[in-house]
Amino acid sequence: ADTSVESLKAQIDALSKKVGELEAKEEKSEPFAGVSIGGRLQLDYNLFDGAYNANHQGHTGSDLFARRARLFAEKESGDWDYKLLLEFAEDGAEITMARLQYKGFNGGPVIKLGKIREDISLEALSSSKYITTIERSNLADTFSPYFRWGVAAYQYFPTSKVRYAIGVYKNDAFGDSGKNKNNNLDLATTGRLTWAPIQGDGKTLHFGLWGSYREMGGDTLSSAFARGEVRETSVKLADYAAGGETVAIDHLTQYGLEAAGQWKAFSLQGEFAQRQLHTTDTTSPLDGQHYNGYSVTASYFLTGEQRQYKAGSAVFSQPKGVKNAWELYGRVSGMDAASDTQGTKVTSYTLGSSYYYSPQVKLMLNLIHSKVGGPGRAALVGDEDTGNALTFRTQYLF
Amino acid sequence: ADTSVESLKAQIDALSKKVGELEAKEEKSEPFAGVSIGGRLQLDYNLFDGAYNANHQGHTGSDLFARRARLFAEKESGDWDYKLLLEFAEDGAEITMARLQYKGFNGGPVIKLGKIREDISLEALSSSKYITTIERSNLADTFSPYFRWGVAAYQYFPTSKVRYAIGVYKNDAFGDSGKNKNNNLDLATTGRLTWAPIQGDGKTLHFGLWGSYREMGGDTLSSAFARGEVRETSVKLADYAAGGETVAIDHLTQYGLEAAGQWKAFSLQGEFAQRQLHTTDTTSPLDGQHYNGYSVTASYFLTGEQRQYKAGSAVFSQPKGVKNAWELYGRVSGMDAASDTQGTKVTSYTLGSSYYYSPQVKLMLNLIHSKVGGPGRAALVGDEDTGNALTFRTQYLF
Amino acid sequence: ADTSVESLKAQIDALSKKVGELEAKEEKSEPFAGVSIGGRLQLDYNLFDGAYNANHQGHTGSDLFARRARLFAEKESGDWDYKLLLEFAEDGAEITMARLQYKGFNGGPVIKLGKIREDISLEALSSSKYITTIERSNLADTFSPYFRWGVAAYQYFPTSKVRYAIGVYKNDAFGDSGKNKNNNLDLATTGRLTWAPIQGDGKTLHFGLWGSYREMGGDTLSSAFARGEVRETSVKLADYAAGGETVAIDHLTQYGLEAAGQWKAFSLQGEFAQRQLHTTDTTSPLDGQHYNGYSVTASYFLTGEQRQYKAGSAVFSQPKGVKNAWELYGRVSGMDAASDTQGTKVTSYTLGSSYYYSPQVKLMLNLIHSKVGGPGRAALVGDEDTGNALTFRTQYLF
Repeated sequence: ADTSVESLKAQIDALSKKVGELEAKEEKSEPFAGVSIGGRLQLDYNLFDGAYNANHQGHTGSDLFARRARLFAEKESGDWDYKLLLEFAEDGAEITMARLQYKGFNGGPVIKLGKIREDISLEALSSSKYITTIERSNLADTFSPYFRWGVAAYQYFPTSKVRYAIGVYKNDAFGDSGKNKNNNLDLATTGRLTWAPIQGDGKTLHFGLWGSYREMGGDTLSSAFARGEVRETSVKLADYAAGGETVAIDHLTQYGLEAAGQWKAFSLQGEFAQRQLHTTDTTSPLDGQHYNGYSVTASYFLTGEQRQYKAGSAVFSQPKGVKNAWELYGRVSGMDAASDTQGTKVTSYTLGSSYYYSPQVKLMLNLIHSKVGGPGRAALVGDEDTGNALTFRTQYLF
Repeated sequence: ADTSVESLKAQIDALSKKVGELEAKEEKSEPFAGVSIGGRLQLDYNLFDGAYNANHQGHTGSDLFARRARLFAEKESGDWDYKLLLEFAEDGAEITMARLQYKGFNGGPVIKLGKIREDISLEALSSSKYITTIERSNLADTFSPYFRWGVAAYQYFPTSKVRYAIGVYKNDAFGDSGKNKNNNLDLATTGRLTWAPIQGDGKTLHFGLWGSYREMGGDTLSSAFARGEVRETSVKLADYAAGGETVAIDHLTQYGLEAAGQWKAFSLQGEFAQRQLHTTDTTSPLDGQHYNGYSVTASYFLTGEQRQYKAGSAVFSQPKGVKNAWELYGRVSGMDAASDTQGTKVTSYTLGSSYYYSPQVKLMLNLIHSKVGGPGRAALVGDEDTGNALTFRTQYLF
Repeated sequence: ADTSVESLKAQIDALSKKVGELEAKEEKSEPFAGVSIGGRLQLDYNLFDGAYNANHQGHTGSDLFARRARLFAEKESGDWDYKLLLEFAEDGAEITMARLQYKGFNGGPVIKLGKIREDISLEALSSSKYITTIERSNLADTFSPYFRWGVAAYQYFPTSKVRYAIGVYKNDAFGDSGKNKNNNLDLATTGRLTWAPIQGDGKTLHFGLWGSYREMGGDTLSSAFARGEVRETSVKLADYAAGGETVAIDHLTQYGLEAAGQWKAFSLQGEFAQRQLHTTDTTSPLDGQHYNGYSVTASYFLTGEQRQYKAGSAVFSQPKGVKNAWELYGRVSGMDAASDTQGTKVTSYTLGSSYYYSPQVKLMLNLIHSKVGGPGRAALVGDEDTGNALTFRTQYLF
């Protein structure tokens, strides 16, 4: 042993002490280990006129508001994980999602419990932080109840590239209180089957099919199906009861088709869906009535980035590590909420661009033009049969 | 110095660099050090009929709901610590607890300030995450206001194994607004004294006594005392006003007795409590009226685990590190909310089993049978003088 | 290589393993790195009589309540940072602040978006955790809308010691819904200019000037301007409509002056502000009406600590690392909400003391005496033309 060894010894002792201190600190903070906290802010400024502001003579209206101010807490414990997603507003808070998952069936399905997203519509299933446009289509807003209390199972088969999801939910959506006249649960049973034969190497091809049977327990179907893809306007453009009456429903059936393709920076996605009413009073002219919707979106990243396809959940998300990127997109969507003597149909055209400063920060500008028709048009919007909107979003994820 | 010493030197330098980086990161995350985040989800599915759903002809009713979706933030600063416990619902949020504690009086009491749990009833004092059955007894729900704004002191004496707790609270409970006619606080003064002569080595023996004096400022006592140990039913079975009238109260007095024993995997706990009304109108037939309740619970861990007794707070919690364990339990509880001409009495029988997947995950199944009697029975439930329920809970702690 | 070298080698290997484990843990906790969580509790007990409780014959009233129970989450991402500040109450939650900031313009302004504090009044701009007295002055409460949705820019020039701030906000304050008759935003434009020629070495001198132009869209100005510096009382003492009527407003203009000085443990700060009404009906006797307010606060740390001046935001905060410190202070503030035939004027005198246990824990005791006058006095408080209050706060920051 010489001096150099002595000096090494001293260095090792000093290092040992520091490592011990770090371990002690790490130990102390152990309770929080594994609890993840994050959220999002979507701050929107909207300008709109015509049909969107029909009950103010179609004058230009506007609003500035937090479209979503959310926080989540997430924690894994072995085969279980839990995510609580909270929405805060100026005058309230609510649970958006409370999802408990069990992933312990190796080679079997994942089980989800709690307030979870129903498997309806590709666009409705995409997280609001990753959708292409500022708002989802009239189709998604009409057909999806978004998050409901229930239990579901899903599984992806990597060899066949097929995925299924099936769930049962409390149907407190679309005007249903969630209970029937006996104070018993109204249930919704919903399933989705997808197939993504091409994945990776800059190419994706996705096909999907979903269906939902929804007990309504005699409650009244809410009149407004969709707003026309702009928030905080004073009129909701797709309204099956405009010029007529709302109706009490025994049950609803809904189904939909999805197709999506991606080739490098370009992507295209389309959906079709139909709802059928089964009224409590079987002599109602609305018994058996069908309502159809469709939506087609095309998007191109001028800077070449590629959206990611998540095979496990069969949805798209934003390009990985996206930075300083520009995206251009357009959408056409229609929702026919008209029957013989009442209701409206709306067609909405969107042209938009998004600038990704980073995966956390995105700025979005959308122009929307909507046309309203159908027997209930005059009752809903008078002479204001078209509406225009400019919407701007600042999005921050953490 | 030879090559091996040279190589050691290089290794030490590399380690030093890594330790420095870890220290820098640790430093940066310092602000959060000590803030603890966690919570719980209790997701319940309930089926019930008869008296529980009497205003729906006793048909089978059901519900699926988050019984508790909570988040907490906790932080220690020297002799002070603070815990904020928040409850989230589908359409709101509220403070369940906001407890600031001072623990600086060595050998003296701990002082608690804020929204804190009143020291009433062993079962009401047990955290909802550790109670044996899915719901607490009719006794606990009748007599405990749970968390109230106030100040309290408590102390445990290890030599005598005696513990006391005493507090003064804003009495915004049981129908009181918390204020009297002058806009002055209605106060509740509550104390509890416990003695646990046997502790440890698989054996516990606990005795307790509590009392509460509650100003009501002339406000009306709420008619429903307890639900009958099932949530989200449409009728609350213990109701002192059924078939008669509610009454304005000057003050309430309440007291209770507790006894609990544990021998290895087996535990038994019993409580008795009484409430006396002091009405504003001293000619009211309800002036001086007593209402009594009792509850007896027996529990056995088939897999041999033992509940833990926390001497500092004089309550039980679940077995430490419990995993893959099965528990069987039963309870009988009665609440007599009947006077000469009005009110009901309810007796509830519970049989249940819990499966502990881990300390974080528990599944519970309870069967409840309740009988309703008393002069107000017909007014409250008509002919539906019994009710049955099946309740199922999935609990996740983090 | 000898045994001592061998032993060093073994020590290094052991250390390497530990460092590797620490790095793995650090890596795993990476997602949360940078999300900061904290908050505050202000638990208040208030006693008050006379004018403050005039609709209860001036008897002594009291309350115990959480004045503020807040949580925040904060996250920096490069040049952007976001802070979400939430307020929780017994029966609700709300967004207090949701501030997204961009600090990427080197040598240029900082941009703020979201729900942010309007730059009105030195005391209103000081964080509630650092204000000298328990409540802010009548002036601050009358003139500041506190946090509003909008966009603002600010910049501090270190050479000239001048700072400006300018912003545009949705004016959903003072009774305005935030929208005009066309469903279009009512905007408020607000600016503040400050100069702090002396800073540091125990001395501060600060001068400020602010102004605000606020569209009200024909909405009615809320009658109560300020409470008289005590919360949860039943009467708000500064009321422009007392004994008369509220009025619909086209727009408001407001401006104010600030001056503050600090010399070691002593500090003095004063403000003056004026509001002018521009009513919708230009024949209203209140059209063009001016309302004035002022406030002067003196504070002295008996234990010698010094408040800190934050040049970047042009406000004061508590002494750095304050511990076991005593502060004495007094304030006089007046708000004249009287016109010729209606409204009240209030003068409030506060004497108070604060004990800082630590930077986290502060105990405060304030005595407040208020006098009410003006043509609306009798209508508002009858003969109770003075009011007294004792307020006590326990504050915990984390």
